[in-house]
Amino acid sequence: MPPSISPLAVPLPELPPVPGVRLAAGAAGIRYQGRPDLMLAEFAPGTTVAGVFTRNRCPGAPVDWCRAALRSGRARVLVANAGNANVFTGRAGREAVEATAVAAAGLIGCPPRQVFLASTGVIGEVLAHERLTAALPALHAGLSEVGWEAAARAIMTTDTFPKAATRTARIGGTEVRISGIAKGSGMIAPDMATLLAFIATDAKLPMPLLQRLLTAGAAQSFNTITVDSDTSTSDTLLLFATGQAHHPRARPAGGPALRDFRSALNGVLSDLALAVVRDGEGAEKLIAIDVAGAISARSARRIALAIANSPLVKTAIAGADANWGRIVMAVGKAGEPADRDRLSVAVGGVWMARNGAVVAGYDEAPVVRHMQGREISIAVDLGLGAGKARVYTCDLTHGYIDINGSYRS
Amino acid sequence: MPPSISPLAVPLPELPPVPGVRLAAGAAGIRYQGRPDLMLAEFAPGTTVAGVFTRNRCPGAPVDWCRAALRSGRARVLVANAGNANVFTGRAGREAVEATAVAAAGLIGCPPRQVFLASTGVIGEVLAHERLTAALPALHAGLSEVGWEAAARAIMTTDTFPKAATRTARIGGTEVRISGIAKGSGMIAPDMATLLAFIATDAKLPMPLLQRLLTAGAAQSFNTITVDSDTSTSDTLLLFATGQAHHPRARPAGGPALRDFRSALNGVLSDLALAVVRDGEGAEKLIAIDVAGAISARSARRIALAIANSPLVKTAIAGADANWGRIVMAVGKAGEPADRDRLSVAVGGVWMARNGAVVAGYDEAPVVRHMQGREISIAVDLGLGAGKARVYTCDLTHGYIDINGSYRS
Repeated sequence: MPPSISPLAVPLPELPPVPGVRLAAGAAGIRYQGRPDLMLAEFAPGTTVAGVFTRNRCPGAPVDWCRAALRSGRARVLVANAGNANVFTGRAGREAVEATAVAAAGLIGCPPRQVFLASTGVIGEVLAHERLTAALPALHAGLSEVGWEAAARAIMTTDTFPKAATRTARIGGTEVRISGIAKGSGMIAPDMATLLAFIATDAKLPMPLLQRLLTAGAAQSFNTITVDSDTSTSDTLLLFATGQAHHPRARPAGGPALRDFRSALNGVLSDLALAVVRDGEGAEKLIAIDVAGAISARSARRIALAIANSPLVKTAIAGADANWGRIVMAVGKAGEPADRDRLSVAVGGVWMARNGAVVAGYDEAPVVRHMQGREISIAVDLGLGAGKARVYTCDLTHGYIDINGSYRS
Repeated sequence: MPPSISPLAVPLPELPPVPGVRLAAGAAGIRYQGRPDLMLAEFAPGTTVAGVFTRNRCPGAPVDWCRAALRSGRARVLVANAGNANVFTGRAGREAVEATAVAAAGLIGCPPRQVFLASTGVIGEVLAHERLTAALPALHAGLSEVGWEAAARAIMTTDTFPKAATRTARIGGTEVRISGIAKGSGMIAPDMATLLAFIATDAKLPMPLLQRLLTAGAAQSFNTITVDSDTSTSDTLLLFATGQAHHPRARPAGGPALRDFRSALNGVLSDLALAVVRDGEGAEKLIAIDVAGAISARSARRIALAIANSPLVKTAIAGADANWGRIVMAVGKAGEPADRDRLSVAVGGVWMARNGAVVAGYDEAPVVRHMQGREISIAVDLGLGAGKARVYTCDLTHGYIDINGSYRS
């Protein structure tokens, strides 16, 4: 039985072409039957690339491959499959990425090192890469500028809806487009990029600048989300710039000319990251957690993540229970400086506790109404300093247990 | 509907008297109706005490009180209630502990600072301490050497069975007894002692020595368990030594004369800690995780905890799925040194993966049988050094969501 679509789902936006990018999707039969599980993207010659990857110490073979390929800063091809993550597969895993890269490079006519690879799905099973390479020629024949939605669907695993975002930006008067797709639902924790996300733009940007923009953007998007605290072995975020737009040359340092581009890129990244939380396994509520008054932004972020990852906070919200005692517990367990007697907690904009105790005459009614909604906001003020952070997560429900107690079977 | 008893429950052992200790339990109506929720223990004059407390930065008022009371190293009374944790209650919380200590001290005839207090239950609600003090005289009148079981039952919250352990030990040819009770089921993570646990012995041991024994014992018992990664604000582990036994005087440094006592104490602590995991909220399987080959014991412990706290590992085990890919993920997310290509994983004693890849010809059948049992063993060898650690946890099931989505309502 396929899971029903997340109640927090957002519709797929219309995805106009990005000059210099063609995509296709198809069924390679890696694991799923009767659905696309493989995507191919081709980028115009001269495309630059930046990447951000998982900090998990046991990364998959495709992550190793992309890290090495990134050194040249050039990309012509992306191949991504769902159903098998090609992680913890030893020599067979390395052979699979090499064979796939060689096959894709042969179709496009580029060095294998300009092929980027990503895999998502089960860990620890050998990837039947012959199925990938057998399916690639048909995908190559079907490459199209309008293949974005098909690609977004082909990389889904436990996702219940496809995820994409798009923006336009101006660089020196010239309009450029930035579009991206992502997949992710479980094994989502923000220790770098998370999951798979592929962005492309027709802007012309040198690799080091592209990398700086992406790293900064990931910090305020994918690195602010968590579904279950479990950092994937396959997290891969790639940004391709085809250089097909005719805008004034960007200065290596970026600067004001890129302000609009940076803002649009961050918008795409945030849209995609939030879409992943909205599709968190079993999620029924989207939770925004704002921590202020910490001794530093880093400390605020750690406290926000401790709240976001607390099973007791997440289950309370699933039960529409504004159990702020559990929020206090999670603040305290983070190990960061906190003074119980200066701590304040709000839910849905209502301050329930201030300076270490419940607010006199606190009226639970508006909070109860807020808790029954789909989007929950939690605010914590530590009263110590100016450090603040925002993190997004979802609730922990029976759906999560259903999905993960029987994922392989 | 009261939850059914954990399938992992162990029967309560027979609890003979501990000379110098009398206990009683009763109903103060703090939160629960029609069941005991308050216990009182009286210790003989001269009793020494040691304590280990939560490292949560937002501890409850009773924890603050016990930390201060511990300075004298002397105890005459313990009062513990269930239903309200007296945490994040500000001035009202401090007043509640003072009033309770004064009332108990008056009954026994001792300074209030020799009264130890512990509360467990909802966080953030003011404790109606008048109900405690009103109930204490009847408990005082009913103090008895055989009150252990009643006390164990009175401190239960979401626990489904009472928890106790007992051992005898010899100090210089004289037999002494060590008995303890504990409560705990959720908000269990080992960042110091966890939950409430009270141990008493008739041995005669000076406070600094008692504290060293307890701190070391907690490290290998309560600090090796986790249910949900959430460190409670109320964790309190107290060890009382009444000195009623007539054994040769213990040297301040302990030494070989205490070898048997130390072993028995550690046995009691381990029994109680394991009973808490067996009663983990919603638990259906007890999981032992052994990590070896890490660069240090500390590193091994962190990796073992990352596995134990991973929702994906815990749900896989709930589903009887030997999903060792998730174990690899959890090793990698711990942030500790790990080399994917040296990593080996076993479940139920069967090595499924060695040196970074699945074992050739690996037969899943015995592992599947093991996974269908109640007690699951996971072993990880990092292949890097001599560091090792063992941690216990339980699976993550629908029962956990049921219990915690509606705890306050």
